[in-house]
Amino acid sequence: MPIRNIAVGDRQEATHPDALKAALAEFISTLIFVFAGEGSGMAFAKLTDGAANTPAGLISASIAHAFALFVAVSISANISGGHVNPAVTFGAFVGGNITLLRGILYWIAQLLGSTVACLLLKFSTGGMTTSAFALSSGEGVWNAFVFEIVLTFGLVYTVYATAIDPKRGSLGTIAPLAIGFIVGANILAAGAFDGASMNPAVSFGPALVSWSWENHWVYWAGPLIGGGIAGLVYELIFISHTHEQLPTTDY
Amino acid sequence: MPIRNIAVGDRQEATHPDALKAALAEFISTLIFVFAGEGSGMAFAKLTDGAANTPAGLISASIAHAFALFVAVSISANISGGHVNPAVTFGAFVGGNITLLRGILYWIAQLLGSTVACLLLKFSTGGMTTSAFALSSGEGVWNAFVFEIVLTFGLVYTVYATAIDPKRGSLGTIAPLAIGFIVGANILAAGAFDGASMNPAVSFGPALVSWSWENHWVYWAGPLIGGGIAGLVYELIFISHTHEQLPTTDY
Amino acid sequence: MPIRNIAVGDRQEATHPDALKAALAEFISTLIFVFAGEGSGMAFAKLTDGAANTPAGLISASIAHAFALFVAVSISANISGGHVNPAVTFGAFVGGNITLLRGILYWIAQLLGSTVACLLLKFSTGGMTTSAFALSSGEGVWNAFVFEIVLTFGLVYTVYATAIDPKRGSLGTIAPLAIGFIVGANILAAGAFDGASMNPAVSFGPALVSWSWENHWVYWAGPLIGGGIAGLVYELIFISHTHEQLPTTDY
Amino acid sequence: MPIRNIAVGDRQEATHPDALKAALAEFISTLIFVFAGEGSGMAFAKLTDGAANTPAGLISASIAHAFALFVAVSISANISGGHVNPAVTFGAFVGGNITLLRGILYWIAQLLGSTVACLLLKFSTGGMTTSAFALSSGEGVWNAFVFEIVLTFGLVYTVYATAIDPKRGSLGTIAPLAIGFIVGANILAAGAFDGASMNPAVSFGPALVSWSWENHWVYWAGPLIGGGIAGLVYELIFISHTHEQLPTTDY
Repeated sequence: MPIRNIAVGDRQEATHPDALKAALAEFISTLIFVFAGEGSGMAFAKLTDGAANTPAGLISASIAHAFALFVAVSISANISGGHVNPAVTFGAFVGGNITLLRGILYWIAQLLGSTVACLLLKFSTGGMTTSAFALSSGEGVWNAFVFEIVLTFGLVYTVYATAIDPKRGSLGTIAPLAIGFIVGANILAAGAFDGASMNPAVSFGPALVSWSWENHWVYWAGPLIGGGIAGLVYELIFISHTHEQLPTTDY
Repeated sequence: MPIRNIAVGDRQEATHPDALKAALAEFISTLIFVFAGEGSGMAFAKLTDGAANTPAGLISASIAHAFALFVAVSISANISGGHVNPAVTFGAFVGGNITLLRGILYWIAQLLGSTVACLLLKFSTGGMTTSAFALSSGEGVWNAFVFEIVLTFGLVYTVYATAIDPKRGSLGTIAPLAIGFIVGANILAAGAFDGASMNPAVSFGPALVSWSWENHWVYWAGPLIGGGIAGLVYELIFISHTHEQLPTTDY
Repeated sequence: MPIRNIAVGDRQEATHPDALKAALAEFISTLIFVFAGEGSGMAFAKLTDGAANTPAGLISASIAHAFALFVAVSISANISGGHVNPAVTFGAFVGGNITLLRGILYWIAQLLGSTVACLLLKFSTGGMTTSAFALSSGEGVWNAFVFEIVLTFGLVYTVYATAIDPKRGSLGTIAPLAIGFIVGANILAAGAFDGASMNPAVSFGPALVSWSWENHWVYWAGPLIGGGIAGLVYELIFISHTHEQLPTTDY
Repeated sequence: MPIRNIAVGDRQEATHPDALKAALAEFISTLIFVFAGEGSGMAFAKLTDGAANTPAGLISASIAHAFALFVAVSISANISGGHVNPAVTFGAFVGGNITLLRGILYWIAQLLGSTVACLLLKFSTGGMTTSAFALSSGEGVWNAFVFEIVLTFGLVYTVYATAIDPKRGSLGTIAPLAIGFIVGANILAAGAFDGASMNPAVSFGPALVSWSWENHWVYWAGPLIGGGIAGLVYELIFISHTHEQLPTTDY
């Protein structure tokens, strides 16, 4: 049996009383994800006394996010669809795979989860700063804008291909791994330039707790546009049309 | 077929004569896990002449624990449920998924496995110290206490969602990977602060063999509380209620 | 249900109207793969001010390519067969698993995807160079030629054994992971010598955008020869003959 | 369908004409595995001008071996059982899961595969030395002997639990991953002390091509003893007895 509705609730489930339970699952998953991801950056700062990023620091961030997102998606897949990311929720909404109301509920849960994770990190580390995402020297804001669009397109396209597409077959078994690992790979490319967020919740919590909002809009606009395009492209080209062409296959 | 009872024995099996065989499996799994995990720390000390931790050292510890715990859970999953951790056993007990007697048997096996692993490491490395977990400078004991609670909550919640939940579906196939990788991710966040144990057996063996018990209680109290909360939350909210709401689904 | 036709379209599908859709999937997959892979090299250059490669840089390249290729194969597996590599397409053609016409379509899509990825990287990074593959000092062109043959033999042999072989069974579920990880492993061996391309599209985009073609032929000839040999060997020895010997098994 | 006979041929197949085909699969798998694994060590020597090992070098070796062994086991799993290691073959023999004749055939294929890999590496790298496994300073030969026994016990126990045990269920799907990753984890523990071979073929090829045989016996005796014990323990305790106790379960 493939994972059921890993990335989206059934359309008819959108107003189900389970919606609150799904929001709780999103809250917990985002908390666990941000705790490990943001925490790995704080650990690097601790070990290097706040020195500039290095290849080893980038590898650490990549593995922490890849592993933790894989787990965060896995543990909420059967309950909420395993979004853990407002851009994924938005991409699912654009493709018609989640209702507006349930989407808003997920957004609130994700932002809360990230914020609580940062507060817990602040206490657990004895008061360290939860550094917000920022542009590295030489990286313009529009460059980062394109970076986030392309990175998040890849992420949400992956969610559609492995978890939402009804023809995904046994890919569904490894969907959470693919979703976590595309984020890990993208961090190795873009982390040195703009931090490689791909996820407004991941950017929001640290920004709120450390109260630093410079260029914060980039980490919302980029992921939402990239995720929205991915949702439209995949739904229109690879899902909708195929539905009619292959009605008699044995999937 | 999903992995059967990967994290807990059936309730009726708790007094089964197979209990000793399950305890043996827990002993071997914990031995293999601690041998690789604690060994990776000793290798770092060997290569750097005991220098302070670095990002590369943290990555090494993360990968060693993630890979080895994935394997340790896999190889005992069908025999004992693949706990390999007194906090997981406690979380399963709190949620009513293992009996007290069998739980005590598991605890003894896990502590013994960790101790034997450390003795073997001491000999294999030509007499090196099996360093106990400790707080890094600037990290208070209550900070570490919260760290261990949050980290272990994430771990035991993952065990419940991917391995115990009867609705896990094909998630069961990748459950051991998720359980190993959440530990790997958490080490990248907390390893630099308190060592990121999440597992009293992992802390006990090195402490016993090197006879250093400073703050040792934190590595029991934190994981047991975090694991207990995870067991309660998941069992009450996501398992018990859903049982009655979805009696006719085709899982 | 194993992944369907992960590496090749059915022979009868080769002239299907879905061919364009498959080419689009190859384009997107190659774009996502090259964006993360080539991007990781540019990030290393950014963080080290263009210093020579180091073990950490090699690990970063390995993980970026392994994770991203795993994802790129996954997301196109059910649509195009998940080639993402002209050498894989050639190996599939040599073994009779894709038609010439469809193969040419794939090649065009893969080369375009890599080129667009490099153009997007150039803009996103604020104008950095998309460094082409090159031989390290002390590495002769014929040494690299043999390197690429052996490396790509391993890659395409893996594609055949896990994704094309009709007897692959449950291996199909982890096929994208195996395909990504053999590239990650091979980069750790050969990356320090010739860059470890194994994929003419991966070499073509950076070479075109940075207009540097020195020894470029090696990154076509090596992979195509290695991939072709793997296709022939696997098809002739492990697929064709077995078909007739085991007609009554229950696969 | 779980992977069929991933680690051993059926007992009745031992004299099957497919034995030569299985030996060829072992040859190719070992070649691919050693090429990446030994190659990663040579790459480290190249990048650091032969400096002493570091944590980054150990991580590189760990990932290269973990990824490559996962792939090597996957691609031969359905043909030869995916041993890729004389100690695994010996452990399978001790537990009665492969015949003596077929075992000898596998050994020859594995040793040949490793040797050819080293010859190809020597040419591809422009004549670099294929360094043999050796004890680090301070590591006695008997310490290494115990290291290899414990490490290989873990490896072969993993092969039995995930790939040979008829009750493995869906664990079979991730068996190659578990087999690769236990080696990756063990390298992070023991690589700094004795190289962490766990595989006589992996040690034999580099020793032959570089003609350095110091302490070579340790890399045969340790793995064979550890693998033999694992085969005996698992077969006697977890397979044989259970067969009779659980004849009516629904596995």
